[in-house]
Amino acid sequence: MKDLQPAEIVRLEAEAVVVLDQRRLPDEVAYLVCRSVLEVAEAIRTLAVRGAPAIGIAAGYGYALAAARGDDLDEAAAALLASRPTAVNLPWAIAAMRRGSQDPASLAERARALHEDEVERCRRMAAHAAGLLAPGTRALTHCNTGALATGGVGTALGAIREGFARGLVEHVLVDETRPLLQGARLTAWELERAGIPASVVADAAAGSLMARGDVDAVLTGADRIAANGDAANKIGTYPLAVLAAHHGIPFYLVAPSSSVDLATASGADIPIEERDPAEVTDRFPARNPAFDVTPATLVTAIVTEDGVHRPPYRESLAVLAKREPLREGTRSG
Amino acid sequence: MKDLQPAEIVRLEAEAVVVLDQRRLPDEVAYLVCRSVLEVAEAIRTLAVRGAPAIGIAAGYGYALAAARGDDLDEAAAALLASRPTAVNLPWAIAAMRRGSQDPASLAERARALHEDEVERCRRMAAHAAGLLAPGTRALTHCNTGALATGGVGTALGAIREGFARGLVEHVLVDETRPLLQGARLTAWELERAGIPASVVADAAAGSLMARGDVDAVLTGADRIAANGDAANKIGTYPLAVLAAHHGIPFYLVAPSSSVDLATASGADIPIEERDPAEVTDRFPARNPAFDVTPATLVTAIVTEDGVHRPPYRESLAVLAKREPLREGTRSG
Repeated sequence: MKDLQPAEIVRLEAEAVVVLDQRRLPDEVAYLVCRSVLEVAEAIRTLAVRGAPAIGIAAGYGYALAAARGDDLDEAAAALLASRPTAVNLPWAIAAMRRGSQDPASLAERARALHEDEVERCRRMAAHAAGLLAPGTRALTHCNTGALATGGVGTALGAIREGFARGLVEHVLVDETRPLLQGARLTAWELERAGIPASVVADAAAGSLMARGDVDAVLTGADRIAANGDAANKIGTYPLAVLAAHHGIPFYLVAPSSSVDLATASGADIPIEERDPAEVTDRFPARNPAFDVTPATLVTAIVTEDGVHRPPYRESLAVLAKREPLREGTRSG
Repeated sequence: MKDLQPAEIVRLEAEAVVVLDQRRLPDEVAYLVCRSVLEVAEAIRTLAVRGAPAIGIAAGYGYALAAARGDDLDEAAAALLASRPTAVNLPWAIAAMRRGSQDPASLAERARALHEDEVERCRRMAAHAAGLLAPGTRALTHCNTGALATGGVGTALGAIREGFARGLVEHVLVDETRPLLQGARLTAWELERAGIPASVVADAAAGSLMARGDVDAVLTGADRIAANGDAANKIGTYPLAVLAAHHGIPFYLVAPSSSVDLATASGADIPIEERDPAEVTDRFPARNPAFDVTPATLVTAIVTEDGVHRPPYRESLAVLAKREPLREGTRSG
């Protein structure tokens, strides 16, 4: 099956931001047409578009749409920023959009450049991270970090795809990722399309599969990586990191520099989204933290488009502040 | 709301074994009438009745029903033994039924005595285990280990209920327990009936709740405890034990002596049931191990009706082989 193209995930049209509605996958491939910035913010809040890089891209397009409509841009930025709190890509993208010319045509161009940059970051990350994998790797991943989450080839899932293309990845264990099943719905769907052997497992099964020796590497994305290497990611990532350490299995975070937040000192400073308990059960009281924080001490390596960062992360990530942008006009534009 | 009585969970009638159909809870309180031993075995296999002690009880009743119908008792025993492999209560109950008189009236009496014994074991376990809890305990539990699973007050959930009655338990975090949601459907329902404050959480959220300091003790049941203290229990128990150890939180197994299998040396010798992958997802390939093994090194204490067993378990559990039966006619009957 043909790979998903970046514009099939999210794109800017003349009077709308169009997103592939991820809530309806895998049963239905349907598009949601957002005709205002509030509709874009709602699409982000309700996870029609999700994944840290993808919500940054959607936010950029939403801001450009607001400019095209002649909306108040301060209000547009505020609405987008309020949609979800944890992934830093959203404020990062808004900051990039608010620097420089606020002319609608420039903003549309800049939003599309942000998207193209994320595609390029994915490509580079995947290449760096695949270099960490040994032949015969049985990889375990959590949530969805593929094309749907990034607009490009993906972060952790991009690395797995590149590893498979190089003949290194043998099989993928896909955490179903409760409560919203991004693994069982989205990652399994992407892997099926790509023809990569995969099995969905209950999140709570990962530990015993590690104990049986069925997992060689754990790869996940990250919604926000603090300056010290602590990382917020989808709920369930932290227990995987603890279990991987317990079993001596490498645990890799794969994320673009747009997910690295050097202004946040540590994981304790990352805002964690609490979502509607009804996502867990609408019959009884419930708690629904949507993210958890994995301390840097449990992370074997962090892979960005710049390469493989090793502990101590405060130093190895600091280079991201100093390096050249991918292109003029995005990071400093 | 009135407590569930033992005969409301499973009972022997003149021509049937009647079980509360746990597959339909919490939406519906409905009974399944099993008129043959094959129907009892099917009820066990499909989880209409589940929980290690409860399937032992149901098997005892099924065997007595076969005798009442004049069925071949070797075939009846074989059908029941084949229904589920992991919980030792099932072969334990069948062995108890096959010792001594095979007269239908004696077998019916013996099966009811097995049930009464489990009720008494629950009462004693709950009292012992509640003694381990400090005031203000926020307990985390997995799967369902209450009245539904035991026919009595429960194992881990019985301990939590007794702890609540003593004013020691403040709140219960209930792992939803994918794929079949025994926590979100059954444990949450039992706690609601008992008026005990509880919140359901996704299984993968337990780790971050421990990291936040929201969990004081983890209590689970066990389907089979080996002579060295290794224990098989519902998939997801092992990661909880690893996480509890990582956070310095006590991890208690609460189980009757009927779940202790001194003939099995270690967890490596316990058969682990693989259930239909469609329980996880019917859309993509999946794996569905129904149990995992927690090594004794991660278990703070094992509580049986005899009291609190501490490491080394090979010695502290060995006393179970030597002690008096709860009543004449069951363990040696």
